[in-house]
Amino acid sequence: MRYEELTIEGRNAVLEAYRSGKTIDKLFVLDGCKDGPVQTILREARKHDSLIQFVPKERLDQISSTGHHQGVVAYAAAYEYAEVEDILKIAEEKGEPPFIFLLDGIEDPHNLGAIIRTANLAGAHGVIIPKRRAVGLTATVARTSAGALNYTPVAKVTNLGSAIDDLKKRGLWFVCADMGGELMYRMNLKGPIGLVIGNEGEGVGRLIKEKCDMTASIPMKGNIDSLNASVAAGVLAYEIVRQRMM
Amino acid sequence: MRYEELTIEGRNAVLEAYRSGKTIDKLFVLDGCKDGPVQTILREARKHDSLIQFVPKERLDQISSTGHHQGVVAYAAAYEYAEVEDILKIAEEKGEPPFIFLLDGIEDPHNLGAIIRTANLAGAHGVIIPKRRAVGLTATVARTSAGALNYTPVAKVTNLGSAIDDLKKRGLWFVCADMGGELMYRMNLKGPIGLVIGNEGEGVGRLIKEKCDMTASIPMKGNIDSLNASVAAGVLAYEIVRQRMM
Repeated sequence: MRYEELTIEGRNAVLEAYRSGKTIDKLFVLDGCKDGPVQTILREARKHDSLIQFVPKERLDQISSTGHHQGVVAYAAAYEYAEVEDILKIAEEKGEPPFIFLLDGIEDPHNLGAIIRTANLAGAHGVIIPKRRAVGLTATVARTSAGALNYTPVAKVTNLGSAIDDLKKRGLWFVCADMGGELMYRMNLKGPIGLVIGNEGEGVGRLIKEKCDMTASIPMKGNIDSLNASVAAGVLAYEIVRQRMM
Repeated sequence: MRYEELTIEGRNAVLEAYRSGKTIDKLFVLDGCKDGPVQTILREARKHDSLIQFVPKERLDQISSTGHHQGVVAYAAAYEYAEVEDILKIAEEKGEPPFIFLLDGIEDPHNLGAIIRTANLAGAHGVIIPKRRAVGLTATVARTSAGALNYTPVAKVTNLGSAIDDLKKRGLWFVCADMGGELMYRMNLKGPIGLVIGNEGEGVGRLIKEKCDMTASIPMKGNIDSLNASVAAGVLAYEIVRQRMM
């Protein structure tokens, strides 16, 4: 259901989608299917950097909503992705120190939509998401973002760690939210900053966390473990906003 | 789907639910149905303050998941509601100035769940929701609250405005989030406080807004109108937390 409005099925339809420049997040291909047309589609998929998954017939039938998939089903992005460079350019044009959200594997489209909405209103210049194990720009994300996707660029990268390394060379500092960090109110969150938000279940991954310059903790006064991912993103983002304003 | 796990259908089942003390948020009765057993159920419904709605057969068939409703379908709460008095008592026992969330018509169960989760972690003593035009404590809310419903009491009131009046007499101040208010970072949000969060689409209602002592605005630096309701609740709640801590 997450993708139903943007599922493209059948060989011609999928090939046409690639050729028209549509962004395909993920391509499902029938296991063992190796004829000419499928090879052509796979070539396009590799060229455009789609995630390719070979699946048995039962799974493909399940993914398909029309039943006429001819061995290929593609999930298309509802919006076009930007490049990390575009995000930095926006900051530069505004004459502001870069403020970027990096999402380490957000899986729920409602959370991703709400976070893009928050990024827009907190004055962030863009959002970076990883290619794997994360939801892309589906129709649900677009709707939940309440229009923010029209303004706030979202870039998708193969490796979030490398993206952090590259951005560090451009002068950004990285802060992630995690328990056991320093209380966010006492940190200096001004300047060019990347805010790293972890996955809903597991938080920020170890490798990504090690790359962060600072770990900020949101005070937890209650009985349960953690805030909803989009709420945590909002609370931290607005602490950055407060420090930049006051 | 919102309620599927907690729909009670059929005369005996509904009557039994009332008699066992289960909280029924809403009772649907077949229009024109006035026989003895239904009168008994309606009496229980009034006694326990359920919202009663008379509906035509087509609607009732639609609501029913088993098809055997015998003219009555009830929506049960997944959790028991607390009283406003219970919430004040918790604050008193902790020796803290009361900190209560008041939700003016949150309709999305995911938002309600996330807000109860935030209330728990921000150290609020409870949440107050209105009886009408708002989602109750459904199974989805319980799940989205990530366990917070086991700790943070939620009270349901007939009239949110009267609840505010009563709490004012107990020394609480009320702040609502709305555009055009004073920047939240510059306000004094310490002391006994009620945080009023508006409906997803329309924000805080006019009558409720007039009862609030302060209108706080969250800085909006982007292109769109408003944050997601649960994110806005989180951002404001944590500004209260910050002021209380620092």
